[in-house]
Amino acid sequence: MKITVVGSVGLDHVETPAGQRSDSLGGAATYFAIAASHFAPVELVGIVGEDFPEHHVDLLLSKGIGLEGLERAPGKTFRWSGRYHLDINERDTLDTQLNVFEHFHPQVPEAARDAPYLFLANIHPGLQLEVLEQTRHEFVAMDTMNLWIDTSLDALKQVLARVDAILINDGEARQLTGQPNLVRAAKAVQALGPRVVIIKKGEHGAIVFNRDQDVFALPALPLEEVVDPTGAGDSFAGGFMGVIAREGNTEVETLRMAAAYGTVTASFACESFGLDRIAQASRDELDKRLAYLRRLCAF
Amino acid sequence: MKITVVGSVGLDHVETPAGQRSDSLGGAATYFAIAASHFAPVELVGIVGEDFPEHHVDLLLSKGIGLEGLERAPGKTFRWSGRYHLDINERDTLDTQLNVFEHFHPQVPEAARDAPYLFLANIHPGLQLEVLEQTRHEFVAMDTMNLWIDTSLDALKQVLARVDAILINDGEARQLTGQPNLVRAAKAVQALGPRVVIIKKGEHGAIVFNRDQDVFALPALPLEEVVDPTGAGDSFAGGFMGVIAREGNTEVETLRMAAAYGTVTASFACESFGLDRIAQASRDELDKRLAYLRRLCAF
Repeated sequence: MKITVVGSVGLDHVETPAGQRSDSLGGAATYFAIAASHFAPVELVGIVGEDFPEHHVDLLLSKGIGLEGLERAPGKTFRWSGRYHLDINERDTLDTQLNVFEHFHPQVPEAARDAPYLFLANIHPGLQLEVLEQTRHEFVAMDTMNLWIDTSLDALKQVLARVDAILINDGEARQLTGQPNLVRAAKAVQALGPRVVIIKKGEHGAIVFNRDQDVFALPALPLEEVVDPTGAGDSFAGGFMGVIAREGNTEVETLRMAAAYGTVTASFACESFGLDRIAQASRDELDKRLAYLRRLCAF
Repeated sequence: MKITVVGSVGLDHVETPAGQRSDSLGGAATYFAIAASHFAPVELVGIVGEDFPEHHVDLLLSKGIGLEGLERAPGKTFRWSGRYHLDINERDTLDTQLNVFEHFHPQVPEAARDAPYLFLANIHPGLQLEVLEQTRHEFVAMDTMNLWIDTSLDALKQVLARVDAILINDGEARQLTGQPNLVRAAKAVQALGPRVVIIKKGEHGAIVFNRDQDVFALPALPLEEVVDPTGAGDSFAGGFMGVIAREGNTEVETLRMAAAYGTVTASFACESFGLDRIAQASRDELDKRLAYLRRLCAF
């Protein structure tokens, strides 16, 4: 079944201990869409400028991603630039240029409006609300960030009250709830709306708290070389929602398998600059890595 | 089969968001011995002062722990005092009084000398070497800390060259090797000697790197209330070595099961002040929690 994702599409400049890359295809919605496209059809809603290279469009189209909702506006594409530390879990944002993203108001085209699955990538919660007004969905998941918790908490809470799931990192969950204990933080997030709370912990894996009393915890895949972790969280979300859309349900076992594939797609995202590796991963590679993950924590 | 543990036995004063406790039985060797005693006979080698309460001795004896190697010296028992933050993953040491521990030189009694399994808890690597000179063992594991990496690296490397396994936290593994990537750090530790490197990550679980190309990763049990995490790492080590001693081998599957039980014993250690909970846990409780852990990461 179909997934619609709304969020940023951009051009990244990234520096890591492994090297650097400029003008690479980035943005939360892009990573999500590429990861999810391995499992289900995806419609992408976002905005780019006149400078957005045609070969990036071609890559998205080659993965079968619907781009009717990708607006092309006068001006420049959203740009993000970051530098990772020697400890690759740490990074500094060097520059953010919103450009056409600054005045973006998502317009969800007819083809994307009735997708049963919707992912609200990390954009201003006011825009996430605008999307919810335009769509009919069975299951909606969201992401957010520390900036919106700080500056737009009321709007964020309105979104939280209307979604089924949130993917949030551990620091943000603690910040949002004031609870240092992660289990309590997850329950406090659930009390704000979403029945499924996925706490992302980067290299330490993820925990899925399901209001049906189910808790699922997974380590991340131990990677000897992390080339560029940009987009790992969005790739996790893409694998997660992709499997849910493929299975067409959100039963306990489906959510567990979805988070396991999310762990796999996130690991591929870390193994190259930009989207190279996650875009090229074959179905066989994804399944083999899933088998490795299963063995990784078997006893 | 029998395990010998050498390390600190002390009296703790601990403050956590859940309350505080004074004069409770503490020390790395104590936590290790209590946790391991659920699985195999343990001989404890350490030192206490004249002030060491008899009811603490009784508790250790009630768990079948051999105390022939527990020296009682003139003077006061080792004391440690610490305060945990609201985020219980952080703590400050308020006070450390070495007392009789200051001039401790482990004397391993005959009953403990030929135990097939030996655990060198976190003491000065010079003392760990003294123990290795006195014992015959099939498999020896060690712990260490940032202080010895800073101040006694040469002696530490001599110990590392002679042990089969090390349990070390992630920060210490990075400090010891200068490798921010944990997989590379583990390999670099292996290159110093131990074929099995267990990276402990506190609330994020543990990873077992086995030179036989086996990698095993487990999340920690998500606990809604952590009363007092003191001794969790030593309790992990106790469960880990206890299962190895019970099984009488260090095959890949045994090491995996051992780390899983270590995760379980560590979780019990966190659920009360001092040793109360881990000492009282029944075999049935340990097994039920192991089953929960298996389900926790099943997909």
